[in-house]
Amino acid sequence: MEKNSAASSCEEIVRNQQVILRERVRGSPKEADMEVRDGSAKLKVEDGSSGAMWVKNLYLSCEPKTRHLMDTIRPSSPITGFGVARVVDSANPKFEKGDLVWGITGWEEYSLISPSETFFKIEHTDVPLSYYNGLLGMPGLSAYVGFIELCSPKKGESVYISTAAGAVGQLVGQFAKLLGCYVVGSAGSQEKVDLLKNKFSFDDAFNYKEEPDLDAALKRYFPEGIDIYFENVGGKMLDAVLLNMKSHGRIAACGMTSQYNLDQPEGIHNLVNLVLKQVRMEGFLVSSYYHLYPKFLETVLPHIKQGKIAYVEDIVEGLEKGPAALVGLFSGRNVGKQVIVVSRE
Amino acid sequence: MEKNSAASSCEEIVRNQQVILRERVRGSPKEADMEVRDGSAKLKVEDGSSGAMWVKNLYLSCEPKTRHLMDTIRPSSPITGFGVARVVDSANPKFEKGDLVWGITGWEEYSLISPSETFFKIEHTDVPLSYYNGLLGMPGLSAYVGFIELCSPKKGESVYISTAAGAVGQLVGQFAKLLGCYVVGSAGSQEKVDLLKNKFSFDDAFNYKEEPDLDAALKRYFPEGIDIYFENVGGKMLDAVLLNMKSHGRIAACGMTSQYNLDQPEGIHNLVNLVLKQVRMEGFLVSSYYHLYPKFLETVLPHIKQGKIAYVEDIVEGLEKGPAALVGLFSGRNVGKQVIVVSRE
Repeated sequence: MEKNSAASSCEEIVRNQQVILRERVRGSPKEADMEVRDGSAKLKVEDGSSGAMWVKNLYLSCEPKTRHLMDTIRPSSPITGFGVARVVDSANPKFEKGDLVWGITGWEEYSLISPSETFFKIEHTDVPLSYYNGLLGMPGLSAYVGFIELCSPKKGESVYISTAAGAVGQLVGQFAKLLGCYVVGSAGSQEKVDLLKNKFSFDDAFNYKEEPDLDAALKRYFPEGIDIYFENVGGKMLDAVLLNMKSHGRIAACGMTSQYNLDQPEGIHNLVNLVLKQVRMEGFLVSSYYHLYPKFLETVLPHIKQGKIAYVEDIVEGLEKGPAALVGLFSGRNVGKQVIVVSRE
Repeated sequence: MEKNSAASSCEEIVRNQQVILRERVRGSPKEADMEVRDGSAKLKVEDGSSGAMWVKNLYLSCEPKTRHLMDTIRPSSPITGFGVARVVDSANPKFEKGDLVWGITGWEEYSLISPSETFFKIEHTDVPLSYYNGLLGMPGLSAYVGFIELCSPKKGESVYISTAAGAVGQLVGQFAKLLGCYVVGSAGSQEKVDLLKNKFSFDDAFNYKEEPDLDAALKRYFPEGIDIYFENVGGKMLDAVLLNMKSHGRIAACGMTSQYNLDQPEGIHNLVNLVLKQVRMEGFLVSSYYHLYPKFLETVLPHIKQGKIAYVEDIVEGLEKGPAALVGLFSGRNVGKQVIVVSRE
């Protein structure tokens, strides 16, 4: 009560640069779909906005979900997505001014966070804060849930990961190596392939764009078949994988990025292999697994601190570079987790 | 030892009518792919054929698997498939002369069963023996495994079954009703639809051939979506179902009969819904679940004896009618489980 009664007397009005959605996006996002413009913000939670909070955005995540979220906001609103932020005013009993948090925020300098939005308080600050956009955020939890919880990997099993150099894929591969699996990943450039082999310790990796026959490529890397496929792309890759699954194989479907921007998704022709090979394929949304976040952190933080998990970020400085970074994501321009720095405080 | 030493002195040579595979089948089987001809058999297990047995076939099952098995046998050999038989000579320590058994046998009057073939001894004979081709055989176990074990149904959930009037589908529907689910099935004729509603107590049923828009049909029967889909057909039906699954839905893929005989399977376009709706889709082969057969029998026999499970067979008399029955299966001619009577003893 004290906080709110004081609000009217010391309002702070600040510039609030924003990345605005111009109009509904069709297919892959283009820079012209977005506009960077200056607004302003009064950084006080209004009386009666029970549970809301104002945050100063520090790091924004640029990921396939950002594209999905574009379909859920009204034109002329800011783009939304995961970000790391500092609370500047709070009527939310779970957070107070000064807390570092992460959750879904706006592509702007300051955001008013509604009480219905799930935010996580950042307790461990002895790792780079931007990691909470990736390794220690949704991509990390996605890798953990999809691979560990859904696929129950066992030592010695063969694991294939598409979009392996992406934020989720690179972690799945490293979790798999820590568990003693044989791990091969694919990516869309030689630079990423080198990263997978040299930085992330994959057993092998290949550039799918240079493989005219994906089935043949998979047979080369997995002559005895694939136990676990971590699915990020869908389309022709999934069709080729289905031909190469081992009996009782498992597929965690985290995303099908090759399909999101098509008017008519490609047909998958080899699904009968799910029956013939007794394969389990399970789609998941990380938002259903928030309750596993503490368990995930407990598992992964020691590995990070012992230097057993490598992590690569592709960092652009400045909110105004956000639109180009998002567009680049869909052409595979980024190497590692794409992060936009709004402020280093 | 005694048995074998006696063999040479009392050999029994009998006529053995057989349904022979003429040549490798392309697509759906045609009657011309098969030939009924007379052979002969000496109903004694030869010295040294450790573990083999001769059986007299009584009832043969006609099912999609019969088509698959055609690809695994050499031309000029008899068709193979599940059947109920009586042991007439045995060197298999698990079975003795006179035992009633079921397992994969030949489409012929008498078959020599190799010791590597899995056979089940029939202990309960107070139900029709032909049931061991269906309700109490592989189709029954398939329904149990796919629905109960893989989909973990809960009271009040919405269940959709394609090829619902088939041997497996009719049982899945009845298991679902016993558990308190809402159950809708589809089939390919009005006669089958009536059977589903009147005989098998489905909540509703429709003729998919009369539905120009399967998505619209499913939305009509499942305005709030489908929790569990028991998949028997694949193709366009699966694509429509994917649009109508509820969040955290489950699909047990028992077969994709619409696809087996196509040179190029149809494309499935809506698989991204596995991710968006967090659906688990799992293929299975009943042969991996033989260990559950006793548990299954224990569950289902009381229901049968209490008249709580209805079962419909489409019985043709005589091995020579086998080819037409098998061809009819793929055009949906049969109503209920297709059985061929070889001998009523």
